[in-house]
Amino acid sequence: MTQLPDSSLSRLFDPQGIAIVGASATPGKIGAMPVTLLRQHGYAGRIVPVNPRADAIQGLPAVSGLDALDADIDLAILAVPAAHAAQALERARPGQIGAAVVFTSGFSETGASGAAQQERLCAAARERGIRLLGPNCLGFMNVRRKVYATFSPAPANGIVPPGGIGMVSQSGAFGAYAYSMARERGLGLSHWISTGNEADIDVADCIEWLANDADTRVIMAYMEGCRNGPKLRRALAAARAADKPVVVTKIGRTQAGAQAAASHTAALAGDDAVYDALFRQYGALRARTIEEFFNLGYALDTWKRLPGGRRLGIFTISGGVGALMADEAHDAALALPEPSAAAQARLLERVPFASGRNPVDVTGQAVSEPGLLLATADDILADGRYDALAVFLAAAGSSEALWPTFEAFAREMQARHPGVPLAISALFPPARRRELERQGCLVFPDPSAAIRTIGAVASLADHAGVDADAGMPEAVPAAGAPLLEAYNEVQAMELLRQAGLPATPCTLATDEDAAVRAAAALGGAVAMKVVSPDIVHKSDVGGVKLNIAGEDALRAAYAGIMDSVRRHRPEARIDGVLVAPMAPKGVECIAGVHCDPVFGPVVMFGLGGVFVEVLKDVSFRLAPFGRAVALEMIREIKGHALLQGARGAPPCDIVALADALAALSRFAHARRADFSSVEINPLLALAEGQGALALDAVVLRANAAA
Amino acid sequence: MTQLPDSSLSRLFDPQGIAIVGASATPGKIGAMPVTLLRQHGYAGRIVPVNPRADAIQGLPAVSGLDALDADIDLAILAVPAAHAAQALERARPGQIGAAVVFTSGFSETGASGAAQQERLCAAARERGIRLLGPNCLGFMNVRRKVYATFSPAPANGIVPPGGIGMVSQSGAFGAYAYSMARERGLGLSHWISTGNEADIDVADCIEWLANDADTRVIMAYMEGCRNGPKLRRALAAARAADKPVVVTKIGRTQAGAQAAASHTAALAGDDAVYDALFRQYGALRARTIEEFFNLGYALDTWKRLPGGRRLGIFTISGGVGALMADEAHDAALALPEPSAAAQARLLERVPFASGRNPVDVTGQAVSEPGLLLATADDILADGRYDALAVFLAAAGSSEALWPTFEAFAREMQARHPGVPLAISALFPPARRRELERQGCLVFPDPSAAIRTIGAVASLADHAGVDADAGMPEAVPAAGAPLLEAYNEVQAMELLRQAGLPATPCTLATDEDAAVRAAAALGGAVAMKVVSPDIVHKSDVGGVKLNIAGEDALRAAYAGIMDSVRRHRPEARIDGVLVAPMAPKGVECIAGVHCDPVFGPVVMFGLGGVFVEVLKDVSFRLAPFGRAVALEMIREIKGHALLQGARGAPPCDIVALADALAALSRFAHARRADFSSVEINPLLALAEGQGALALDAVVLRANAAA
Repeated sequence: MTQLPDSSLSRLFDPQGIAIVGASATPGKIGAMPVTLLRQHGYAGRIVPVNPRADAIQGLPAVSGLDALDADIDLAILAVPAAHAAQALERARPGQIGAAVVFTSGFSETGASGAAQQERLCAAARERGIRLLGPNCLGFMNVRRKVYATFSPAPANGIVPPGGIGMVSQSGAFGAYAYSMARERGLGLSHWISTGNEADIDVADCIEWLANDADTRVIMAYMEGCRNGPKLRRALAAARAADKPVVVTKIGRTQAGAQAAASHTAALAGDDAVYDALFRQYGALRARTIEEFFNLGYALDTWKRLPGGRRLGIFTISGGVGALMADEAHDAALALPEPSAAAQARLLERVPFASGRNPVDVTGQAVSEPGLLLATADDILADGRYDALAVFLAAAGSSEALWPTFEAFAREMQARHPGVPLAISALFPPARRRELERQGCLVFPDPSAAIRTIGAVASLADHAGVDADAGMPEAVPAAGAPLLEAYNEVQAMELLRQAGLPATPCTLATDEDAAVRAAAALGGAVAMKVVSPDIVHKSDVGGVKLNIAGEDALRAAYAGIMDSVRRHRPEARIDGVLVAPMAPKGVECIAGVHCDPVFGPVVMFGLGGVFVEVLKDVSFRLAPFGRAVALEMIREIKGHALLQGARGAPPCDIVALADALAALSRFAHARRADFSSVEINPLLALAEGQGALALDAVVLRANAAA
Repeated sequence: MTQLPDSSLSRLFDPQGIAIVGASATPGKIGAMPVTLLRQHGYAGRIVPVNPRADAIQGLPAVSGLDALDADIDLAILAVPAAHAAQALERARPGQIGAAVVFTSGFSETGASGAAQQERLCAAARERGIRLLGPNCLGFMNVRRKVYATFSPAPANGIVPPGGIGMVSQSGAFGAYAYSMARERGLGLSHWISTGNEADIDVADCIEWLANDADTRVIMAYMEGCRNGPKLRRALAAARAADKPVVVTKIGRTQAGAQAAASHTAALAGDDAVYDALFRQYGALRARTIEEFFNLGYALDTWKRLPGGRRLGIFTISGGVGALMADEAHDAALALPEPSAAAQARLLERVPFASGRNPVDVTGQAVSEPGLLLATADDILADGRYDALAVFLAAAGSSEALWPTFEAFAREMQARHPGVPLAISALFPPARRRELERQGCLVFPDPSAAIRTIGAVASLADHAGVDADAGMPEAVPAAGAPLLEAYNEVQAMELLRQAGLPATPCTLATDEDAAVRAAAALGGAVAMKVVSPDIVHKSDVGGVKLNIAGEDALRAAYAGIMDSVRRHRPEARIDGVLVAPMAPKGVECIAGVHCDPVFGPVVMFGLGGVFVEVLKDVSFRLAPFGRAVALEMIREIKGHALLQGARGAPPCDIVALADALAALSRFAHARRADFSSVEINPLLALAEGQGALALDAVVLRANAAA
């Protein structure tokens, strides 16, 4: 059951009538373009030009202001200067207008006085129950209903046909370029939306609306930043729930890009790594380039079924290019299983010099033997070994004589093997390409782009069973004790233990007797560490003793630590000495939480030492999440092999590690008002079946960090 | 001075007359295509069909065999079945024919009997001084001289104009596809060559010939493998010496690709990492995809000057896409310096809402103010801060009305700032795009592709001053002692010391007295290690003692080692105990040499521990090389930051490290007949000014490894 779209946005995006404030008769003026486009493309609703200095505009009767309208109207387009926009809206009666699109610039993007104009505009809209798109935007198009509420010049160079892609862009320039690219690539759009300054409606609203729009199958979004993280998260969850893939380009991946973005966009950007985590968590495909953005949108829109997994068959008439494609498949983490022995034998019977492995090279013989491609594909796909097929036809693809062969191949593939989506790489003339696309077959001139695209789309299948946030959980019970001013290591570990994390038992001893008692309770040799809010590098001041056993040694160690620390740092406050068991063998990891200003608590995971400090090899997810997401974030780090038992060590208990991360995420979410950051370092990954163990932690209160 | 091309290949690639053996009158037959193409495109030389069953072919008088030719002829095309090819050639008189191209398949690629056919063909050619292209190849084209010695169907769909790109492909299918791509991309070719089975002439020969060919400015090569490494190295050196950039695609980058390549190509592939090292060493640009292959060829051919460095100016009419381009610039290791304060101020005067930093966003104002782009570029380029400029024009690029603005911009940029190559990203119609390209301006629909291409091409400038092999050096003096059967650690270190490497002093002690004397000679505490050809993990058997000082302790340590080792491994042969100074502090690196079957000794460098073992973070270069190449290989590893003083450590002596690698490479090259592998582990990088130090080494004799 598809949920009905938010009705307030439906009046905007599917209006029954449109008033154009500032409508103009002068071609090329921003007030002329929507009137022209709406009429030219046959918009079926009512069009009312609003212009106090004309009785008619482009042949349509005009009214002098919104108050002069004889009836309610869904949409008002404001194509008047910033100084007059609020005033124009203020003439509307409450309830009279459903939504407004404001084209003009000169608002918050220009500084303080513009921001004041924008605030007045927003207030006018709010008071009248009007949803607002813009200001400083190119407007939108509902392609199927022929609503051209835009002054973008892009449709003037040729329009995009109706189709299943809903496209939303924060940037008008990107949006206009993307519209033109869609036309060049032969894609069809349901909606095209530019959000501009996002005074009210933002990219997240549009994604959520498109997720619920019956005309939209695929969502393509471009964003520069976002002010409301939870809303974006909800929108991506809605798209996921509606089974509509989202392709997103977000600028500021790198420091250079983030700086450039910050100097450009007024939106509070948040940390790019957090956006990346968000997109991974909700299975939104992040495109790094405009080309990738379109390759992904193209594949998701053109294929009638998406690959159900990562098993790729490569099929070529040139072994060398097959190897090139295998290289790319490796990079895209696609598997290349071999065809069945029977299928291989059958091919070699037909073509003795062919290669029956994967890549399957049917050789140039495919050119002289029209049925060879299809017969081989039938054999190879007979036993369900492949989730997608990539075919390279070399220069033969442009041959007029061979077109019937290739067309029949694509058609029959769709009929006989609809569960194995197909991508062909060849240089077809545009009309031929369109023909294959209509049959649900992708066409790429560059075989590597085909493979990369298949790899990215296949990742949706990996992720299909993962519950991105494990529901919004009940708050975990608050720690028994009231909130403290600050948490020392022992208190921090206790807090995590109560939150369900495996924390090593540790006791704060404030004298020798207590240290002896604590060690006796633990049994075996212990580690002892000074606990002081003023001392970070404990070893440097003689504040750590390891492997201490026996009462005398314990007393001596306690005294030794106190003595050395007081000598080195006479001014330091000392809480006592932490007594803990010696750590078992394991791989040192780090887990942490920090509070992103836009998205709230974010959990980090990485391996200790150089991996975090030098290689920055870490992964992030938004709290809260469950085991499946935690497993994804563990598998994502590059040093992951170390947890699988590299260098002769046994494999680690990755599930226990994942559960610890999930527990940390639930704690962070539930107590997000109380705590601003947590760092567990090290979090020890023990051998399989033996769990994970937090050895030390730093917990900071919200607003407690100076 | 351009060296004259090898004259024997000139008769092949620039023939004055061509005989076609197996010439046919039947359209579409492989013996018909070259006759048709040569005549159709106006080849000016003599064309002689050879066919025993016809007096004339396609209107040209035919002869019955090569022996029936009335004069010498430069080139014979053999379009006859494998079984008749050798025989056909055997009819030629020695010296009569300069070269032969053999189209047909059925030779070594099909197995043993085909290999025998190929051997007979080669012998016939060799005996008559005939250079051979193929067999099993699509032939070649000399585009300028209209020599279409090919049966590729690609030219039938439209020919590529003459131009500066020489293209050579081992694979016919790739070659044909590349020819079609070149046509689609509007590139011009000097030559197009397909080498097939490479019975005589291989890709390296063609690269070297193109390097010396006056019509060729850029070389594009596709290869699957290579049997003669030194020849390929020489060819790349020749291209470098002639200042002709080489773009190369070599399949088998990954394991999946290498397997696929191995199953396809008969050429011994060698290790892909070694090819990669070779390409880096000689500044050949390796393209991973066909698209990248063409983007690079396109840039190198279209730009009239190449970027002199990595400083990029980004220029947009949309801030958001500027940030996207900055992201890509970061990934491509391009720097984005800011314009001068004066230039920034001038832009903000003109457009208050512009962004004067880099990316420079002139905003949509560029559309309404035709001179803005050029005026801003003039300001920004005034003080020589940029090596290249990338411009994004968004959808405005497709505007008919704005074309004069953009055309004038590109033209004036070329006139006023010829030293700053320009790439524009926009969706121009094809004819417009060609117009800009004629002015030396690159055009890319995808701005990220523009940035990536600039980054790759700019790397040629980085590398410009580097002497790739530091000349072929004199052999280093052989070690004084004769070659031993096997080298223990002490002997290995001595060998490296004699080769000019900084090796820690160490002595083999065979009794306690000797150990005491050795320690006394060194002064200070020492490390002691058992030396045995049978014991790899010395610590596990109590074979290592560290930080030993004083006669008693030395004697006890010696005895303790011997005792423990004999207890654990009674059967082990023991050479004695190595005595060495305790190692200073430093970053542990690994350097090694192995012998590639195709390319000979290859030097490896990496950081120790997880970097090599888990992350495989290593770099390679072909021996021998000098300091500059060694510095490149050190900078190339991902963990490079650790050598620059990460985690509070002082920066390392990278020059000393480089000199050690260069010395190792000279040793490996000079003694390549004697030694098959060297591993120095650890090679310690000490603090700046303190050098590097090899602490331990394993050296294996050539053919000594079982």
